[in-house]
Amino acid sequence: MAATEIEQLIQILSKLPGLGPRSARRAALHLVKKKEVLLSPLSHALQRVEETVKTCSTCGNLDATDPCTICTDGRRDDSVICVVQDVADLWALERSNSFKGRYHVLGGTLSALDGIGPEDLKIDTLVNRAQSSLVTEVILATSATVDGQTTAHYIADCLENCDVSVSGLAHGVPVGGELDYLDDGTLSAALSARRKME
Amino acid sequence: MAATEIEQLIQILSKLPGLGPRSARRAALHLVKKKEVLLSPLSHALQRVEETVKTCSTCGNLDATDPCTICTDGRRDDSVICVVQDVADLWALERSNSFKGRYHVLGGTLSALDGIGPEDLKIDTLVNRAQSSLVTEVILATSATVDGQTTAHYIADCLENCDVSVSGLAHGVPVGGELDYLDDGTLSAALSARRKME
Repeated sequence: MAATEIEQLIQILSKLPGLGPRSARRAALHLVKKKEVLLSPLSHALQRVEETVKTCSTCGNLDATDPCTICTDGRRDDSVICVVQDVADLWALERSNSFKGRYHVLGGTLSALDGIGPEDLKIDTLVNRAQSSLVTEVILATSATVDGQTTAHYIADCLENCDVSVSGLAHGVPVGGELDYLDDGTLSAALSARRKME
Repeated sequence: MAATEIEQLIQILSKLPGLGPRSARRAALHLVKKKEVLLSPLSHALQRVEETVKTCSTCGNLDATDPCTICTDGRRDDSVICVVQDVADLWALERSNSFKGRYHVLGGTLSALDGIGPEDLKIDTLVNRAQSSLVTEVILATSATVDGQTTAHYIADCLENCDVSVSGLAHGVPVGGELDYLDDGTLSAALSARRKME
């Protein structure tokens, strides 16, 4: 029985991933109590994001500019495109600081269950980009799930007529992972892809 | 490596209770993707809360009006004041639909560890309210924790000179609770407060 304004805030907050009705109520109360240090900065941050952030028409990244800073960065390698399912995956790869080429965000994976077909993903624009003479390699960094791998195979087929080499991420033991806790699939993948010690 | 606008949003979201850096990132991405249905409603809800919600100067509840709708509701019983630690507890009691008197929000509990003394809580205003001739009973609905019970005893002492009866919530087996999973303290409290079956 909070004020209707707070009830509305709770209702919207509870739609965020990771927040249920109870935690949304806690978050709303916390926001109201910390009006100056939390509520009004959050309100302003949301407004700025609403006004400035757009989807890059080239790669599908989210940024304040279109094309995005990754697509316009002259120091990045134009010859490699890394294909990811989602912007979150692009961010994860950027945090790892291990890839200096361009990206392409699919916007999901093929999924018969959810009725997502090739026309729902940005596959045609990827093929267009891969046909450019600059591009020599496409890395398919979709998830190691059934849907992710199905999508990777489908895209590999689409890219057959383009003059690019198509690769996927390596499977194996995660760095810091204990063998005892790994699933059988990862273990056998790591075993069959074993490397010579140097 | 998201746009600075999104990074700021993530940083603020991660300060909400229940959200860490990773879930804040997920929430921010979700917001940006659902601009129309989620981001802009949330932004507007926050603005409305910022503009309208204030603390009731009588009971400490949060509402769009001061005094709040509970304090001004003529159908509620003026003779009973229920003392709670926090607005969240007031909401919980209102959801249970079992109390039709007035409330008083303390704003916390006494805590030697956190350095919270009687002057940090709204105890003097409670004593003032209890001195009104209308009030006949004060229910101390603080938590059944050490701090909560210490606070209840302290307030009971403060109210000694007021002409009101002071009561506390009953301890016992939670409705739907299994004995096997209950702690010893609750079990012995439930046993000593046993009631005649009718």
